[in-house]
Amino acid sequence: MLSLIFVSIMGITQREIQQVFSTLDLSEEVFAYLASKFERIELKKGEHLLRAGNRVEHNYYLFDGCVRAYFIDDAGKEHTFQFALSDWWTSDYNAMLKKEPAMMNIEALKDTVLFALHMDDLEETCDKFPDVQRFHRRKLQGAFAAFQRRIMENLSKTAKERYLNFIQAYPDIEREVKNYHIASYLGITSESLSRIRRELSRKDKARAIS
Amino acid sequence: MLSLIFVSIMGITQREIQQVFSTLDLSEEVFAYLASKFERIELKKGEHLLRAGNRVEHNYYLFDGCVRAYFIDDAGKEHTFQFALSDWWTSDYNAMLKKEPAMMNIEALKDTVLFALHMDDLEETCDKFPDVQRFHRRKLQGAFAAFQRRIMENLSKTAKERYLNFIQAYPDIEREVKNYHIASYLGITSESLSRIRRELSRKDKARAIS
Repeated sequence: MLSLIFVSIMGITQREIQQVFSTLDLSEEVFAYLASKFERIELKKGEHLLRAGNRVEHNYYLFDGCVRAYFIDDAGKEHTFQFALSDWWTSDYNAMLKKEPAMMNIEALKDTVLFALHMDDLEETCDKFPDVQRFHRRKLQGAFAAFQRRIMENLSKTAKERYLNFIQAYPDIEREVKNYHIASYLGITSESLSRIRRELSRKDKARAIS
Repeated sequence: MLSLIFVSIMGITQREIQQVFSTLDLSEEVFAYLASKFERIELKKGEHLLRAGNRVEHNYYLFDGCVRAYFIDDAGKEHTFQFALSDWWTSDYNAMLKKEPAMMNIEALKDTVLFALHMDDLEETCDKFPDVQRFHRRKLQGAFAAFQRRIMENLSKTAKERYLNFIQAYPDIEREVKNYHIASYLGITSESLSRIRRELSRKDKARAIS
């Protein structure tokens, strides 16, 4: 008989699985199956989930915490191109699908819990459970749409507008993240980011006084 | 009885549907269903499939031809951020999913045939036919992986390396596409692109002589 204790021994509880597939009404059978496939990973702040050159076989659901995906160019310069918070999936998809070494590094910015799902298990799960496949397809659609939009916004918006978009998209992130990570994500220098913040804070003060 | 003539009247033949879902072994039932959902669109060179501000309700399969997706920034500058050739799907996904006005323009670079699938029909098709849903999910995964990789390569490669990647990814495109579209896609000026080409052509000549 399946019990919560059993699935908890496997590393992930029913409640946690339900959070991953928030909108789905999963049967006991699906819970048990998923609980046996997911692996819990706990990272301390500063630890890496993935480093460039690694083999990548898993897709990761971020249960709690915050990570950043970054990339080091040939000149040794670091580029942050994504932050992930609770309820995001993250991986180096190109490395995972093409079985190529990772180009991406993923680092925990605070203590973080992730659930890893092997790509073969993801395929099998999608084949077995149409609801899960639809859920995953819609997540991918949303991620792709957000990516397209971000590329267009990066081309059109000023640094200040991009910063305002950023704090709207990631409202609580500034406490977790170093200034130069945000600057790198926005494609500007740390000095430019400080100038933008000073400017916005002056405006806020002016508004408060008037 | 379903016949090829019937589905052809609907705009798309069985053979064409089979090209869209190349790896799938579709039943007559699925052919008939899909043929009734796809709409054929023929564009002359220079015509637009989509303009910024439009409502977007369709996902488009590029059957034959070539289009470019571009974006005009607030200063009126044009940015080409994608080319699509045969067997690619294209749309402004953000506008389609969020029901927001398009930010993207899509223009035919030569005479082009596309098959449009309404987003509601895409959802219904995926719900009815698990094979089609898996096919679509994998296409999305691949597109997302390619997008991630392109962002990392744009950050790390020199303009010359990006140009070499481009002609490898789109081997026949140079005949169709204006120089300033390629330059805009690579994020460089037309002058830089010409310099890179001259440099590569000098090297080719030097290699031929030696």
